[in-house]
Amino acid sequence: MAPSATTPAAAASNGTNGTNGATKVAAPAQLDASKLTIERTKSPRPVPSLETANSGPETICTDHMVTATWTASAGWAAPRLHPYGPISLMPTASVLHYATECFEGLKAYRGYDGKLRLFRPDRNAERMVLSSTRISLPSFPPAELEKLMISLLSVDGARWIPRSRPGTFLYLRPTMIGTQPQLGVQASSEAMLYIIATYMPVLHSPAGGMHLRTSPGNMVRAWAGGFGFAKVGANYGPSLLATADARKDGFHQILWLYGDEGLCTEAGASNFFVVWKDKETGRTQLVTAPLDDMIILNGVTRRSVIDLVKERCPELEIVERRYTIQEVGDAYEEGRLVESFAAGTAYFICPISLIHHRGKDISAPMGDGEGGEYTLKIRTWLMDIMYGRVDNDWAVVIPEEE
Amino acid sequence: MAPSATTPAAAASNGTNGTNGATKVAAPAQLDASKLTIERTKSPRPVPSLETANSGPETICTDHMVTATWTASAGWAAPRLHPYGPISLMPTASVLHYATECFEGLKAYRGYDGKLRLFRPDRNAERMVLSSTRISLPSFPPAELEKLMISLLSVDGARWIPRSRPGTFLYLRPTMIGTQPQLGVQASSEAMLYIIATYMPVLHSPAGGMHLRTSPGNMVRAWAGGFGFAKVGANYGPSLLATADARKDGFHQILWLYGDEGLCTEAGASNFFVVWKDKETGRTQLVTAPLDDMIILNGVTRRSVIDLVKERCPELEIVERRYTIQEVGDAYEEGRLVESFAAGTAYFICPISLIHHRGKDISAPMGDGEGGEYTLKIRTWLMDIMYGRVDNDWAVVIPEEE
Repeated sequence: MAPSATTPAAAASNGTNGTNGATKVAAPAQLDASKLTIERTKSPRPVPSLETANSGPETICTDHMVTATWTASAGWAAPRLHPYGPISLMPTASVLHYATECFEGLKAYRGYDGKLRLFRPDRNAERMVLSSTRISLPSFPPAELEKLMISLLSVDGARWIPRSRPGTFLYLRPTMIGTQPQLGVQASSEAMLYIIATYMPVLHSPAGGMHLRTSPGNMVRAWAGGFGFAKVGANYGPSLLATADARKDGFHQILWLYGDEGLCTEAGASNFFVVWKDKETGRTQLVTAPLDDMIILNGVTRRSVIDLVKERCPELEIVERRYTIQEVGDAYEEGRLVESFAAGTAYFICPISLIHHRGKDISAPMGDGEGGEYTLKIRTWLMDIMYGRVDNDWAVVIPEEE
Repeated sequence: MAPSATTPAAAASNGTNGTNGATKVAAPAQLDASKLTIERTKSPRPVPSLETANSGPETICTDHMVTATWTASAGWAAPRLHPYGPISLMPTASVLHYATECFEGLKAYRGYDGKLRLFRPDRNAERMVLSSTRISLPSFPPAELEKLMISLLSVDGARWIPRSRPGTFLYLRPTMIGTQPQLGVQASSEAMLYIIATYMPVLHSPAGGMHLRTSPGNMVRAWAGGFGFAKVGANYGPSLLATADARKDGFHQILWLYGDEGLCTEAGASNFFVVWKDKETGRTQLVTAPLDDMIILNGVTRRSVIDLVKERCPELEIVERRYTIQEVGDAYEEGRLVESFAAGTAYFICPISLIHHRGKDISAPMGDGEGGEYTLKIRTWLMDIMYGRVDNDWAVVIPEEE
C-alpha cells in the first residue's frame, strides 16, 4: 500500500541499499562493527571468585556491554561499548507487551593454553538473524554481530575470565528487543541490540544423570507453523509452568513431545539425543529430531555433535528423523537403548539417565555412572576444541587487551 | 523438593496465607489497593487535542501511572501512583529474554452525561490473573487491580478526558513483567505490575469494512496445548510477520485458521463472528469459535455480544462451535452469509466486508455500507452502555477528582 516498492524498514531488514530513483532517499544504515565507539568504565567492579560467581539471585555481568540501536527510517546507529548498566524503556515499549525479543547464548572458553575462544560464533550470529526476522525485528549482517561479541570479550576477557582460570567460561548473551514506545499490534519501528557477558553455573552434570519427564498432555512447546526453530522469548515464558511442575516432582527438565503420536522434540531448552540399536538393522544409531518440521532449535551444539560423529565415529549411524517416545520406550524394554543425552550451550552435553512417561520409567544406561560411552566421548571431543587442547577451526581465538 | 510444602512463591501465587508451623515465616503480602501511595507530578504535561492525540509514532500517556512490585519471598509491595515515566530494567531482566509478560486492554468512556465509565473491568482483572499465572508471573486478587485502575482514572480522568469531550475514550493498559535480573529458563522471582492510561486511535470502522486474509499455510497463531487463551506477549510478536505481509497486500488483518480443516479462530487480535442462515435449519445464527479449545481469547467484548444477543435478539441463534473457512465460503456461495464482524476492545465491533482465502474472495454483506444490520445494532447497544446513554451494571462509574 506504500507508494514506493521498498519501504525504509524493508530495505534495512533485507540488507539491500535500494534507493528510490525519484526521491533519492538515503538508505538506512547497516549494522557496522567498525563504527564501534568505546567508553570505558571509571569504576570497574570486583571480579567474583568462582565460588560466589553464581551464588546470588542475580546474574553477574562484566564491566561493559555493547549496544546498537535501530530505527526503521535511519537503520542502525553506530554501536557503542559502554559500562554495563540498566536499560531505560518507556512503559509502552513493544518488547514489554508483544514479546518482540530474541536472543542468543554462547560461551567464551578460557583454554588450558591461556587463550580465550568462542565456539562457532558465526552459527549463533546467523541464527540470531533468523530469530530477529521471525519476530519482526531488524536484520543485520551476522559477521558484524560476531565482531561486536569479540570486541566485548577483547575488553573484558582478561579481567573477568583471567588466565589463572583455565577450563572456565563466560556466557555471552546477544539480545534484541523492540523499543518503539507505541501500543498496538504491529512491528516495532525501533529496536535495540545489546550484548552482555555473564557468569553462568556449570549445568551439564547433575549427579546420576538428568531426569526428564515428558510434557503433560495439555502442554505443547512448539508446533508446526509456529516459531519453535527461533530463539525468541515467546518459546520460553510459556514453558516455565510445566518445567516448574516437573521440578517440584524431582525432575530436572521436560521432554517436550509433539502431536498425538508423541514425537520427541527437545529436552528442556536443549536438543535431545538417544543412541539405540535399530530394531530392524541392529545398527547402533544416534537419533535426534529433524529440523525440517521447524519446531526444534537448530542447535549449534546439536550440529557439532552430528558433524563430529560423522567424522570420527563411523560405527554410529546418524539418524535425523521423527521418532516417538513409544519407540524410545520399546528400545528400553527390548534392551536396545544404549544411552541418551541433551545437547545445548547451557547444559552442554548432559547425560540423561531417566525419562518418566505417563507413569512408566525409561532408564537410559549411564556407563560407569558419569554418562554413556558415546556421550562422554562426544563431550570430550567438544571440550578439547573449546578449551584449546586441540586446534580446530570451530574455536575462534579472541585477541585480548592486556 | 522443597522442605516445606508451600513455598513463599506458591503461597503468594495461590493467594493463601499458609504459614509453616515450625518456623513461623511471615506470609508474602497480597496486592492491596488500600495501601496505594500517591505522588503527584510537579510538571503536568499538556493534554493534546483530539486531532493530534494519535498522530505521532509514540503513544501518549496521561500524567501518572500505577506501579506495584512483587518478589517471591515478600509478595506484593504497596502499590504506588506516581508520575508517568520510563522503567529501568537490568539487561538480564526475565521479561527481555523469556517473554514473561502479560497485559490487559480496556477503555474508559466519557459519557454524554459527563460521567467517566469503565466497561466490565472485573472481567479484564480476572483474565489478567489467568494470563499472569499462565506465564509464571504472580497472581493477585483481581478486585485489587480493578481498584488500582479506578484510582488512576480518578486522578487523571478529569484532565485527560475532560467532560468537554463526550463520546471519547482513554485506553487502560495493565501490564505485568518479570523483572528478576537473572538469566536461565525459570520463573521470575521478581515482577512488576503497572497500569498506564493512553490515547489510542478509533479503529473500528475502516471505510467499506474490514478486509481479512486467511493465515498463510505455514503460520499458526495458537494451538491446542499452547496459550492462545491468555493475553501474553508471546501470542503477539510471532503474529506480526503474517500481519505485515497481509497489510502490504492491502488487507487489514489476518483471519487465523487452525488445523488441517481450517477452523476459524481470531481476526487479527479480535474475536471473529459470522451471521449466517444455517444450512440445515434455515435459522439465522450468530457463530463464533468456542472457548474450550483454549486457543482463542475469552474476549470481554465477545462475551458481551453473546450476552446482549441472548437477551435482546431471540431471533438470532447463538452458536459457539468449531467451524471452518469452508463453511463460511459455502454460506457465501449459497447466499446464506448474512454478515460478519470482529469484536474486541481495540477494534470494538468492526464490520468485515471481505475475507480472502487461497485465491478466492468471500464477500460479507454490509447492509447500507456502514455494516450489517446485526453488527450495527450490537455496536449501538454496547456504545449506549459504555457512553451512559442507558444505565447498565456493566458500566462502572469512576469517582473523579475535580
